[in-house]
Amino acid sequence: MEVRMSIERYGMAVRLKEEKRDFYLENHQKVWPEVLTELKKIKVKNYSIFLKDDFMFGYLEYEGNNFDQDMEAMQKISIVNEWTVLMIDCFNPFPNHEKNNSWVMMDQIFFME
Amino acid sequence: MEVRMSIERYGMAVRLKEEKRDFYLENHQKVWPEVLTELKKIKVKNYSIFLKDDFMFGYLEYEGNNFDQDMEAMQKISIVNEWTVLMIDCFNPFPNHEKNNSWVMMDQIFFME
Repeated sequence: MEVRMSIERYGMAVRLKEEKRDFYLENHQKVWPEVLTELKKIKVKNYSIFLKDDFMFGYLEYEGNNFDQDMEAMQKISIVNEWTVLMIDCFNPFPNHEKNNSWVMMDQIFFME
Repeated sequence: MEVRMSIERYGMAVRLKEEKRDFYLENHQKVWPEVLTELKKIKVKNYSIFLKDDFMFGYLEYEGNNFDQDMEAMQKISIVNEWTVLMIDCFNPFPNHEKNNSWVMMDQIFFME
């Protein structure tokens, strides 16, 4: 039996549409409980989103075994997908990533425990 | 006696000069131990830096009682200041923050434990 205790840290970036700012902020004060439950199920933890002007930065920790696979499976759950569609509609692409209408994954270049 | 157990989470953003990219990345694989020691002394923990293109985002947790005061005091330590000067020289200002030549602090708009 494999015991996996490591934590992966993910950073991601996107921009927020000015006209959707209030909607996005309000919804992130009361994220649908079903969405939070699914995130916890796949072992996403310590998830923060930060905003400056129209730039957003997300940070999360993942303690599962296959992040991409878990995220993909989670998006197939209809209420999660419904939430995601609403949120993606709030986004402007990150500079130079116009083909990606959602979060752009970043590279972790430093870590201090 | 006050017991403070809360964690503050900070997100910050800046850009990296193309010509300093290698220098910055290499130095963040081997940050001066004195700098790490001082960060730990003021109870900075779980500190990551992420990069995408020339955008950088920093995330850290702070378990002390006065973040601004601790950071200011830390910058007065000469080896920390020497490090900081070298690193600031790698930065381009964040868009619309040309007067700030270093990290721009962001607002935390979401948190899930």
